[in-house]
Amino acid sequence: MRHVLYNTCYILSPMPRHVDHDARREEIADVAAALIASRGPANVSLRSLAAATGGSTSAVTHYFADRRELLQHAYRAAIRHARARIDAIADDQPDPLRAYCEAVLPLDSDRRRDWQTWVAFHGAAVGDPALAEMQRWRVTAFREMLAEVIAAEQAAGAIDRSLDPATESRHLLSLVHGIASEAAFDEDDWPAERQYALLDRALGHLRTPVQLS
Amino acid sequence: MRHVLYNTCYILSPMPRHVDHDARREEIADVAAALIASRGPANVSLRSLAAATGGSTSAVTHYFADRRELLQHAYRAAIRHARARIDAIADDQPDPLRAYCEAVLPLDSDRRRDWQTWVAFHGAAVGDPALAEMQRWRVTAFREMLAEVIAAEQAAGAIDRSLDPATESRHLLSLVHGIASEAAFDEDDWPAERQYALLDRALGHLRTPVQLS
Repeated sequence: MRHVLYNTCYILSPMPRHVDHDARREEIADVAAALIASRGPANVSLRSLAAATGGSTSAVTHYFADRRELLQHAYRAAIRHARARIDAIADDQPDPLRAYCEAVLPLDSDRRRDWQTWVAFHGAAVGDPALAEMQRWRVTAFREMLAEVIAAEQAAGAIDRSLDPATESRHLLSLVHGIASEAAFDEDDWPAERQYALLDRALGHLRTPVQLS
Repeated sequence: MRHVLYNTCYILSPMPRHVDHDARREEIADVAAALIASRGPANVSLRSLAAATGGSTSAVTHYFADRRELLQHAYRAAIRHARARIDAIADDQPDPLRAYCEAVLPLDSDRRRDWQTWVAFHGAAVGDPALAEMQRWRVTAFREMLAEVIAAEQAAGAIDRSLDPATESRHLLSLVHGIASEAAFDEDDWPAERQYALLDRALGHLRTPVQLS
């Protein structure tokens, strides 16, 4: 699936009839996420998505009622990509906190594409309580996951135990969001080494007692 | 104008015929920015904007060719609000760097509204080279302004002279963007004191030699 999604060809191979409904919907949402990132949310209709997946509009409307629902599923598709990267972090990873941040920073074209899908969703979520709630849920969930990693690293002695995991996870995630919200529009301005420089400085403060002014 | 804009009533008072074209367009763009923030970009059409300004659709289309152009002008309206806050910073402000960051952080409902307009624009800028260019220009311009303030503060001895203003302005602006991109959807999760806590920690690092890991 990743090869289909991340190549310029978005045509999906035909699937047997007994294919699972949710799996097929996820496949189409993956294509939608990539299209939204490249063409912009205003230029991805159910019709153009149908064309991109090599199916009919009615096949697409079987999975998505309208463009708003399509955008929700594209958003979730990009979250699945991030989750897959997080799931791939090895249990014996020497620096798990850095690895979690790497999983979501726009360090390469795949991750930048996910951010473009998310940023498109954010735009649509302004003034839309249900979409905004999805975004709040996502921020909270990721922040809690980072806080758990920080607490585990504190228990292991790798991070300063006087720090509050909730505060530090909030700080780290806002840094990720800040970098990503700029990098989504300016790849050249945010090469991976620049992102790592800011990330490693923030992580460095966690490893040594923080000097508050 | 601020009172009209920031109240629930968006009806503008009639203006004399000789009113300057650009000024009138800016007035309508201000209304559009507030509407986009509250109703969402998908729910603000030229027609609904005309209704909100108490004019006809043709009066609105005199200023904006389509919704995309309207969104561009709403984006610029929110930038004008930020610029007005920056222009209001006193020359003898004891902590100008903090004041510049305060001018753009979503610390109150006015500034949060500006961020909602910007986030809506960001969503539309995905896959739209011209809008993305506007966003890159804005990031670069604000970052350069912050770098100038940092350099002046270094000259005045208030900020560690070993630091690179370009790097520090990049870090500060990404922090602002990160906080704002979350706070746009979750006011309760980002009270002003929480934003100040992260800002002051970042500024604190500028005032003392930074410990790199």
